[in-house]
Amino acid sequence: MNVNGHPYRTVWMEKGAVKMIDQTLLPHTFKIISLPTHIDTAKAIFDMKIRGAGAIGGAAGYGLAQAVLEAPEDNFLDYVKKGKENIEKTRPTARNLFYATNRIFDAIQGTPHTEAKTVAVREAQAIADEDQENCRNIGLHGAKLIQDGCTIQTHCNAGWLAFVDHGTSLSPIYHATREGKNVFVYVNETRPRGQGSLTAWELSQENVPHVIIADTAAGSLMQRGKTDIVITGADRIASSGDTANKIGTYQLAVLAKENNIPFYVAAPTTTIDFEIESGSQIPIEERSEDEVLFMWGKNDKGEFERVRIAPEGSRALNLAFDVTPAKLITGIITEKGIFKPDELHKLKPHS
Amino acid sequence: MNVNGHPYRTVWMEKGAVKMIDQTLLPHTFKIISLPTHIDTAKAIFDMKIRGAGAIGGAAGYGLAQAVLEAPEDNFLDYVKKGKENIEKTRPTARNLFYATNRIFDAIQGTPHTEAKTVAVREAQAIADEDQENCRNIGLHGAKLIQDGCTIQTHCNAGWLAFVDHGTSLSPIYHATREGKNVFVYVNETRPRGQGSLTAWELSQENVPHVIIADTAAGSLMQRGKTDIVITGADRIASSGDTANKIGTYQLAVLAKENNIPFYVAAPTTTIDFEIESGSQIPIEERSEDEVLFMWGKNDKGEFERVRIAPEGSRALNLAFDVTPAKLITGIITEKGIFKPDELHKLKPHS
Repeated sequence: MNVNGHPYRTVWMEKGAVKMIDQTLLPHTFKIISLPTHIDTAKAIFDMKIRGAGAIGGAAGYGLAQAVLEAPEDNFLDYVKKGKENIEKTRPTARNLFYATNRIFDAIQGTPHTEAKTVAVREAQAIADEDQENCRNIGLHGAKLIQDGCTIQTHCNAGWLAFVDHGTSLSPIYHATREGKNVFVYVNETRPRGQGSLTAWELSQENVPHVIIADTAAGSLMQRGKTDIVITGADRIASSGDTANKIGTYQLAVLAKENNIPFYVAAPTTTIDFEIESGSQIPIEERSEDEVLFMWGKNDKGEFERVRIAPEGSRALNLAFDVTPAKLITGIITEKGIFKPDELHKLKPHS
Repeated sequence: MNVNGHPYRTVWMEKGAVKMIDQTLLPHTFKIISLPTHIDTAKAIFDMKIRGAGAIGGAAGYGLAQAVLEAPEDNFLDYVKKGKENIEKTRPTARNLFYATNRIFDAIQGTPHTEAKTVAVREAQAIADEDQENCRNIGLHGAKLIQDGCTIQTHCNAGWLAFVDHGTSLSPIYHATREGKNVFVYVNETRPRGQGSLTAWELSQENVPHVIIADTAAGSLMQRGKTDIVITGADRIASSGDTANKIGTYQLAVLAKENNIPFYVAAPTTTIDFEIESGSQIPIEERSEDEVLFMWGKNDKGEFERVRIAPEGSRALNLAFDVTPAKLITGIITEKGIFKPDELHKLKPHS
């Protein structure tokens, strides 16, 4: 996608170095960082300089390829194994991360030392390219749902910053815009972390008309007829279609139903967990109360600063995700097409 | 109510001066300010050092009483009229403000100069006392809805800070607590202005157990069975029962219905506007986008500061209120008892 008119991916490899957009500085400052070794790349993942399912997977793949490139001939496999561990301990719950490191490790097993280096870089590149291709296809299918003049409500950031490119929930919007359709996006702020500001930044870069709204205004906009479709991302989808996603997704789905507005989830098929039947089996992460009690931003001097918004002595409860029951979901936009929640069994890989 | 263990009202009169809690410093700093003249009081209302329907009404009454006390014998009525204007231009949409100034002005009409001073102070005191009494009775009736061990979800601040004392939506909670019932309150942050922090501060002062939640978590808590009842305030109620209140109220009502949770509105009967039939006749104020793009708080040095949370170049839409249709409201808690939305005609004053 574009930043200041130039095309970028969130992460890529250049002469053995991993390059990525430092997302901890966004939406205020755009900066590319260069990570010469796999240790630097692992640290960047740990520090959340890159975040989002697909983007983490891409970075982890490139990181392990770096470890393979660094590995000395006399200690090759041990060095790579240690590198794999270094990368895997950064974000222990990120599914895509393990997919990437395992795939590369499997590919180089039993391969001669010099050839392994080529194989590892090629696999890392393939992982990133496949993520991009999946997200592009999600956009292609999803754009069919977006009519000219459509108003769309989104939540959190499942844009291209969360993947290698294109994103999931925003990909249909980008695709529709490229097809010449006029759209208008209401961007939910998404407290407590406020990832709506990343979505707003992405949309600005792509010249997609939008406004940010407080999460409290989501329902009122639907009630006033200002939302034609809601599209969100997904962190995990059970085989029943129940979907875990950023806190606040469930209530958008309820409000969409009340107002007869279609509610879509956009995600690659790898997000579907066929091991679990129901959303009640998805554990919900509770995060630090500081995310609710404080807010980060840029002060008038241009410095990043956090301010306390809650009174001293009050506590907060910070649920990071919620589960939207399948019955509230109109359809799931995947790289293979759009499916109703009760059709997901068609996507089950044959073992 | 209590602050640091001492009883306070939000506004009162002492030897001709108006005293009030400076709410612009809350929830971080508790400070009483003393306003020697009606001009000072008017300015404090304008600067929102006091806010909330009943509290503004109380302050306006005391302010006009100050003008009456200041008025010279040879120019008495003109001075009072000018004082009335000074006070009325501070918050032109606040219903209670005009009720207070008109009531005092009517009471002193045709009254001799010296006697008028006593009458004005007495009326101002009566206005404040009646506000307190109404809110106390709202608490008395509303407490019947709160069982021992009840979990309650609230929105915005319609606590005692918004009235002379007790508040509306929080008054039943305070009353139930005083009756010895155990309650737990989930306090919605209420972006963009974050008035949940005022509610949290009040609850802390009264030792009512609570946590603050992001507005995005409201629905998920209901879905998980963590909310037995929702109580909010009201800015204006149409005769049909449709209710205008702080943005986010509508979606709480929809979520409560979806989860079979009773949804109550607490407000004095003066909030009911029998001139309008439906909520669609209530105009919705749109406020500055800066309230969404920025956040105020206390930085690590203890200074108040605003930080920009949205990217430069992005705009925001800031709807300040929404309308909850009567069909989503279980009941309206007034000083005269609890009424279903379709029973409000019983409260219509006979003209």
